[in-house]
This record gives sequence, C-alpha cells and structure tokens, in this order.
Amino acid sequence: MPATPSVPRSTRTRSWWGWGYTDAHPDDAACAALGALIPGTLARPLPIPRIADLPIAPPAVTPPRSLAHLVTADPRARASHAMGKAYRDVIRALRARPGRIPDLVAHPTGDREVADLLDWAGTHDVAVIPFGGGSSVVGGVEYRGDAHRAVLSLDLTSMDRVLEIDTASRSAHIQAGALGPVLEEQLRPHGLTLRHFPQSFEFSTLGGWLATRAGGHYATGRTHIDDFVQSLRVITPAGAGTSWRLPASGAGPSPDRLFLGSEGALGVITEAWMRLQERPRHKASASVAFTDFHHALDAVRALAQSDLAPANCRLLDPGEALLSGASRDGSSVLVLGFESATGPVGDRLASALDLARAHGGRAETPPADRDSSAGMADRDASAGMVDRDASAGTVDRAPSAGPADRDPSAGSAVSAWRSAFLRMPYLRDGLARMGAVVETFETAATWDKIPALIDAVRTEVGAAALKITGHPATINCRLTHVYPDGAAPYFTVAVAGRPGAEVEVWDDIKAVAGEVLHRHRATITHHHAVGRDHRTGYDLQRPEPFALALRAAKDALDPHRILNPGVLLD
Amino acid sequence: MPATPSVPRSTRTRSWWGWGYTDAHPDDAACAALGALIPGTLARPLPIPRIADLPIAPPAVTPPRSLAHLVTADPRARASHAMGKAYRDVIRALRARPGRIPDLVAHPTGDREVADLLDWAGTHDVAVIPFGGGSSVVGGVEYRGDAHRAVLSLDLTSMDRVLEIDTASRSAHIQAGALGPVLEEQLRPHGLTLRHFPQSFEFSTLGGWLATRAGGHYATGRTHIDDFVQSLRVITPAGAGTSWRLPASGAGPSPDRLFLGSEGALGVITEAWMRLQERPRHKASASVAFTDFHHALDAVRALAQSDLAPANCRLLDPGEALLSGASRDGSSVLVLGFESATGPVGDRLASALDLARAHGGRAETPPADRDSSAGMADRDASAGMVDRDASAGTVDRAPSAGPADRDPSAGSAVSAWRSAFLRMPYLRDGLARMGAVVETFETAATWDKIPALIDAVRTEVGAAALKITGHPATINCRLTHVYPDGAAPYFTVAVAGRPGAEVEVWDDIKAVAGEVLHRHRATITHHHAVGRDHRTGYDLQRPEPFALALRAAKDALDPHRILNPGVLLD
Repeated sequence: MPATPSVPRSTRTRSWWGWGYTDAHPDDAACAALGALIPGTLARPLPIPRIADLPIAPPAVTPPRSLAHLVTADPRARASHAMGKAYRDVIRALRARPGRIPDLVAHPTGDREVADLLDWAGTHDVAVIPFGGGSSVVGGVEYRGDAHRAVLSLDLTSMDRVLEIDTASRSAHIQAGALGPVLEEQLRPHGLTLRHFPQSFEFSTLGGWLATRAGGHYATGRTHIDDFVQSLRVITPAGAGTSWRLPASGAGPSPDRLFLGSEGALGVITEAWMRLQERPRHKASASVAFTDFHHALDAVRALAQSDLAPANCRLLDPGEALLSGASRDGSSVLVLGFESATGPVGDRLASALDLARAHGGRAETPPADRDSSAGMADRDASAGMVDRDASAGTVDRAPSAGPADRDPSAGSAVSAWRSAFLRMPYLRDGLARMGAVVETFETAATWDKIPALIDAVRTEVGAAALKITGHPATINCRLTHVYPDGAAPYFTVAVAGRPGAEVEVWDDIKAVAGEVLHRHRATITHHHAVGRDHRTGYDLQRPEPFALALRAAKDALDPHRILNPGVLLD
Repeated sequence: MPATPSVPRSTRTRSWWGWGYTDAHPDDAACAALGALIPGTLARPLPIPRIADLPIAPPAVTPPRSLAHLVTADPRARASHAMGKAYRDVIRALRARPGRIPDLVAHPTGDREVADLLDWAGTHDVAVIPFGGGSSVVGGVEYRGDAHRAVLSLDLTSMDRVLEIDTASRSAHIQAGALGPVLEEQLRPHGLTLRHFPQSFEFSTLGGWLATRAGGHYATGRTHIDDFVQSLRVITPAGAGTSWRLPASGAGPSPDRLFLGSEGALGVITEAWMRLQERPRHKASASVAFTDFHHALDAVRALAQSDLAPANCRLLDPGEALLSGASRDGSSVLVLGFESATGPVGDRLASALDLARAHGGRAETPPADRDSSAGMADRDASAGMVDRDASAGTVDRAPSAGPADRDPSAGSAVSAWRSAFLRMPYLRDGLARMGAVVETFETAATWDKIPALIDAVRTEVGAAALKITGHPATINCRLTHVYPDGAAPYFTVAVAGRPGAEVEVWDDIKAVAGEVLHRHRATITHHHAVGRDHRTGYDLQRPEPFALALRAAKDALDPHRILNPGVLLD
C-alpha cells in the first residue's frame, strides 16, 4: 500500500543551542523565577548565545562537485550540529565553550548519497557524525579531539518518508530520518501507529531511536525500540545490507541486534521496517498515592510481575511528585494507565488498583473505562500533530470524561505530571541560564538491587553535589519503566553551579553517579545511550569477549575509522 | 537464596541413535503398522543399529594427564555424540553411514575445565563441538570434513545446577548443561518456572536453547529463549566474560544477543541468569474447527493482533489435525489455551472464541476457566517430572474438570493433539526404520506472505517429493507460533524413500524446500537453528555487513578456528 504522499514538517523555529522550539523557551523573567527555586543561582539569566560569537573557522575540506549540492558550510547549520541537547551542551553554548563545530553538514536524500558521502569521507580523513534529531544527551553527536582532518555532520532528516505500509502485517517501511511527528502523521491515515514516544519524540528520529536503543511509550514489557524492528537497512563503509522482514527468526545471532545500539559507529541506518499497532480506542488511567516510597516500590514490582500489563506505570518519588504537581503532601505517586485497541480495560485498571491498595496505596481515581473517540484521544492542541499523551501514558482528558465516578483531583495529578514531563527540558534550559546544574541520568537494575541503589544514589550523589558546589542539591527519582525482573530508575539532579565552571561541576557529579551505578551493577544507561559521556561506565560494564567482537566488527565495517569516532570504542 | 541441593537425573536409557528413551521406541510390529500408512515403504523394519558395527577408530589424540579424568574414548559415548537427532541422523545410523565419530567426549564440571579443554584443543588442532542434549535436527553437533586432526565433543550436561535463585527479581542463575526437566525440578520448590518447553524439552539443555535461539512454550508474543535472558557467561578461546544481570539496557549493542544463536561457533555458554515466572494457577483451553484453512489463518492473525495473548494458539491444517486425532472430518483445528498466575482467564478465552467464530470457526469447548490445583496441573504421570502440558499449551485434564459446561469432544481434540505432539519424534524413527522419509522443517514470515508461502510449499515440495521418489508425499502444516506481524509455519513431509538412498532423497527434498522459503523471503529457520544443514539458506539470508562483522568476531574470539567448525561460517 503506498504511503501518504505529503510529509508534514513543522514551521516553528528550532533552537540551535537549547531544547526544542525557540517560541517555547522561558523568557528572562520566567528564568529568574525558576532560578529563585534553587539557592545559590545567578541573579540574572545568562544571555541567549549568538552564533556570531562562536569560533567558526572555514571548513578544512571541500566536498567534491558531485556531492556539493548535499553539503553546506552555513554557520547556523554548523552551529546547530555541533552538539546534542544535554545540559552539558546547553551550558557550553551559554558559556561560549561549544564542542568542535563540524566543518560541513550534509543532507543526503537517499542511500546512494549516503554511500557516496561515506566513500568520500573515508578517502579524505573526514570523520562522519550521523545526526538525526540531534537530541542526544550523552555527547553522541559531537566530535571530540583532533584525530581527523575534518568533521562532517551527516543529517538524515531529509530522508523522512514512510515508503510502504503493509496493513496485513501491521508494519511500515520508514526512512530513518523521520522525526516522531513526521512518521506518525504519515501512519495516521492508515489507522496505525508506531506508538514510540520518548520524551524527545518531537525532536528525535526513527534512526536515532534505533541507533541508541531508545525507550518508548510502554512503561512495562516491550518498550525499547529494539522489539519493534522487523528489518533494518544499514550503509557501512564496507558495503550496505538489508535484513529480511521477519516476525521472528532463529537463524544465527540476530543481525539487527548488532546495529541496534551501535550509535553510528558501525554503519548508518537508513531505513527500517517497523512493527505497528492499531491506535488504542480504550483507555483508562488513575493515580495512586503512597506514604512510603518503599511500599510503592513493592506495589510496582507486584504490578510488573502480574499479567495486567499497564501501558503506563510510572512511580514518582515525593520530590518528583511535588515538582510535577502530582502531589503536594509528600506522597509518592504511581501514575497508571491502560490502553487497548481490542476491548475495554477498566477491569485491568481495577485489578491494578486493588493490587496497589494491598500495598498501602490510596487510589485517587475509581476504575473508569471509557471509549475515547479517536479524535479526542489522539489530538493535542498544543502540539497539533500526534498522540502526545503517549509520552506520559494514557490520560483521560476532561472534555471526554463522562462517568460520574471520576475524581477531578486524580485527573489533575495525571495531567499535572504529563504537562510537567513535556515541559521539563525547557525548564532545564531556563535553569541553565540561571547558572544552575540541572540534569538527569537513568539506569536499570534487577529488583533485588533497586531499593539500595536508589537510596545510595540519593545519599552519595547528594553528598558529592554538596561537597562540589557548597549548595544542597535536589535529587528526585522516578521509575520510568518496570519489568518483571527489575526497573529503570530515572534521577534528576538540581543544584547551583560554580559560575563559569558548571560543566566541570556536572562532570564531577556525573562521575560520582557513574561510580554508584557501577558498584550496584546497574547499567550505565537504560535508554539514553552511551555516546561519549558514558564511555567509562560502559567500558567497565561490557564483557570482554563482546568488546573483542565489537572492535573486530568495527575494523571490518569501518576500516578507515571515520564513523562517529569515540562512541562505544576508541 | 540457595538452590535445591540435589539434582534429579533420569535413570531411563537414552537411545544413542534415535529419539529419546529406548523404552519408548515403537517395536517392530508397531513400526510395520506405521509403515503401512505410507505407500511404498519397506515390508519389514530395518534392524536397530549396533554400536559394534560402527567404524570407530582409535582416538587420533590423547588428552594431557591434567584433563584425562574429564575425557572418555568409550565407544558408546563416542557413538552417541556423533550426530544429532534429525531424521537425517537416524537414517544414517540405520544405514550404517554415521557422521564422523568424535575421537573423544569430555564432560567438564566447571568453567575452568571448559577453558582448559579449549586451550588444549586450540594448541592441538582439535575441533570442539559443544554438546548439550544432542537434540539438534540441523546437523549442529557433528563434525563434517577432515580439516582438523581430531574432534572433541564437549558435553556440558555435568554442569546442570541451579546455582542461585533471586525470588524478588524472579530469576535464577543456571548452569548451561541442565536438561529441561533437571532445571525445572530445581525451580519447582521455589514456586517458579522457566516455562520454556520446546518439543525436545526432556532431551535438550538450557545452553542448547540459548545457543540456538530455541522457540518455547508461548505460541504468541515472547517465546524465543532470547527474551528470557538476563545475563550470559561465555567462555571463548580468547577469554571469558559475563554480562551484567539487567532487566533491560540501552548500553551499546546487546552483548548477549551476539552469543544467542551463535551455535557454539563463537564461544561456549556455561551459565545464564534467566527470567522466571510464577507457575500458572489459572488455565482454560478450547479448540476451534474451521472448514476453510484460509479463514482459520485470518482468525489466527486477528488473535495475534489482539491483546488477548493466548499462551497456546496453534493452528493445525486438515492433515495435521487428522494425524494427531484432533479432527477427522477434514477441518483445520485451532488449539487455544490461556494461563495466568494472576487471575482467571475465562474472559480472555471467551473473547478469543468470539473472535474465532467471527471468522467462521466452530468453537468446540464453551469458555471454561478453572483453577487447576498446582499438583494436578503440573504433574504428568508419564513423565513424572514437570509440566508437560506446556509443550502443547494449556490443557484441561479430565480429573480436574469440574464445570458442567465442558465438552468432552473438545477436550479430546486438545489432548489428542498434545499426545501426538510428544509422541511424534518416536513415530518418526519408527517410520525411518520402514524406509520412509519423514521430517519437518519450519520457518517464519510476515502475514502478507503466509498464505502464498504455505500454498507454495505444499505444491512445490509435494511435486518435488513425487518426482524424486515416485511416490505421493504427505505434507502437513501447522502454525506453531504467531506474532502480530507474522507466523511460524511448521511442515511435516512423509514419503517412501528409495531404499538405501533415503539421505539423498531427503537432501533433495530439503533443497527444494529451502528454495521455496528463500523465494518467499521466509527465514530458513524459526527455532531449529542453522547448523550445517541450513547453511545455504542462511548464507543467502544473512545481510552482508553482518556477515563481515560475524567473520571478524569469529577471528577475534576463536583464532585457531576450533569451535564447531562449519556452523554459521566456513
């Protein structure tokens, strides 16, 4: 079945230095108000950085005439491809200390052009940094060092088409450069959805999700993008290949799994066949408050080990609940949501609430299952594009609320959490302008380790932040994803930085966090990827036989070592 | 938590040449009765082969004194490690044409011994064939050719302990040499189960399942062993390593996924932490008859794309239904089962039956959900060990049937199918003794390809078998596993062979089957693995960049090329 002919693209202006759209950035007054929440921050916001102030040298290489039309040396394009969107990147821009700015930015429109660019780069000592939405928070899309003559940022976003849809197999052939809303909008007319909604959904691409093993919508069970891959097309300097479209296979080690998570170091993913789903027609949600966080952990574990399979099952600790407005009384809050395209989900929500109550939870919404009309459920006026409730799970909106047993306060806890979730990266940048250090890190571990791990992070990272900055830090935690055998805790750290040394402060705090994770054998990343910032932890975690195999694969596929140097391997 | 101190082992005698236990083999009269079902087979069964008739030469190497206690040159041990248990292996034994018999068989009891054996083999040009239960049906555990001075079969079954159980995370640390019943018996006292029940369950090991990406109990969703792996320990000639126990991770490409499916060519898996489940307490099952196989396919697809998640959802075509006794009127039969440790499953079965009826199915059991007592549901008198219903899905047994709405005829369709399923490999060997060619092959493809694929296999493989043998062949099909995006068809071929040339007949038929699968882009194997028999199809299917990476990994991890030579790579 042919896909949608026109590809919608946003006309809003993306920030080159900060998160998202410039029109959504907090203004100076809002930044000052945010800064007032964190003791020791600046009196006035740092000025918004200007491209004209950046040290942008002339490109060290010139592309051949055959590729010149794909390549630009425009300063704005180069500046906006210099770094990702971590706090570390934002503060470096604000402090006029950006990473090395790429010499050129290429926008290939097809596989042949990608291969030609790799060929040229390989023979001209040009490092190639594959670039999707540029939302990396781990230094995944910048070049560090000076081992290459020049750096080319390979922006895939001109390859953003849904090429084919197979409705019988509920799958679609999608180019890797499609941003989240761009691909969902092309799937919508077919009643299908990829339903992968990371927090960065608007500003990240399918290829970026695949290359970093992104975590998505579902808070339980299959949520990593890995599980939705039917087939991949990969272009490497040593040749291109496409895996067969298969629902499952036992033929040797999975070829796709080697490239999933390879972060552009082994090849460039240009297309994928992805498993889709019908849009959910039945949704129900509720929140549950717990006085004791550890009781809440037990409840979440019991839920994860049941077969109730909530789509949303996110546990906020008291600080996180307070920050998002989900609770103001010091409770932990569990945000629960169920959804289905097949049938009502009220019974599953009711069973989940029973289970939560058995662990001391106070359910704030009686079970309610309603058929949201597709129009109501899928639209979000503020985004104008796609199912934005997805990032935060299923949300019952006031306009579609019918049943009388709905508790408005619970609805507001769920929506408060949701709005805060989507707004968070913008607020982070506002705080960065106030000289605060505000960043997140995330991990996963088996349940036996979770309570001690969370306690240790709070205690040890808190102590380190105080020691490093002289200011008390706020450390909040939520569980973003849970599994029968473990959970993924997500931590937010906020503390006043040392003016001008915010990068060093964050690096020092992050190093302590990495040590705590390592000591508890918690992964260095559940869904943010390794990039360059997580290399120390990743190298310690990776089993040596796999390291040998990965290095050998790198040598075989990227003999000139031009692909995203420094990511995963030296 | 410490695991069970004693490891139960069967005292029945395993056949060195045929499937399973010798006391379960059909006798001569039973073989003759089976042969009468297939026109053109022999008048009398081939005699049971004798080890004394095998060409067993003295070992070409002698192990060093430090390893001598682990190694045997006993003829029976060598004979029973010469081949797997494919039809091809059985008929070679019957026709006194076995594969190359290994010089030695080693039974290491720990990692250090495995590493020492690999070290010795690497310096003495000895090929090492990792060997679990020896149930390979793809030539995965034999040596072909003469490139090595000697061959060592590395039998892991002395490493069969559950080392540790983490009940909070519902996971267990298990040695790779544990046979299915051996590991389940050790998990049972903890109320937990791996619930991985391939047809070979009694005669295959955890390590074998991991190395071949075995398909297991669940007919929908996560069923490959891959998805139940938390961590692996792998010994390679270049060193050993253990991945961290993690519920999920986004740190680089999955290290475990490179070794899952590596079939002993990259390293020896010696231990794994596996995700477990509570034993199901709620079960319900039914069968549905369809006059039209293609309508049945549509029904199964709709079920797979719902969120009902049946544990058992196996579709038998008319021939398969007849053979197993599930139906005698030319209907296709869908065997459905639901199970849960959490709550009743009757509603899910009822919804599934509604869905099947909407596609023209005749449900033969009204929805019935009962709490099977653990003792009743988990025991099988004939096996005396573990939950044997698992292989064929959930089965309501007569003694535990309470509700009046139970339809005995449907129960009998489900049980008939189940007994036939477990008995099938024994019958295959009985037919082999009658000179029949009887074997299975399996695949998977997306739904858009399934109907034409199944039709093409029936037509083209049937025509080839007739042409090759001069006899009409029976070709039956069932779907063993289904996914939202596709299904795994499993084919059985039965035809009289040419006396003395049964191996060649099967190889010729199998080659045609491989061509049909390739033309339809259906995988060369869904869960039987590649071994040596599927190399042609596998090489055509594997994307070239992955082939380059895999060869590089092999060179790095197995520099002397001693590990299972010829499997996956030349």
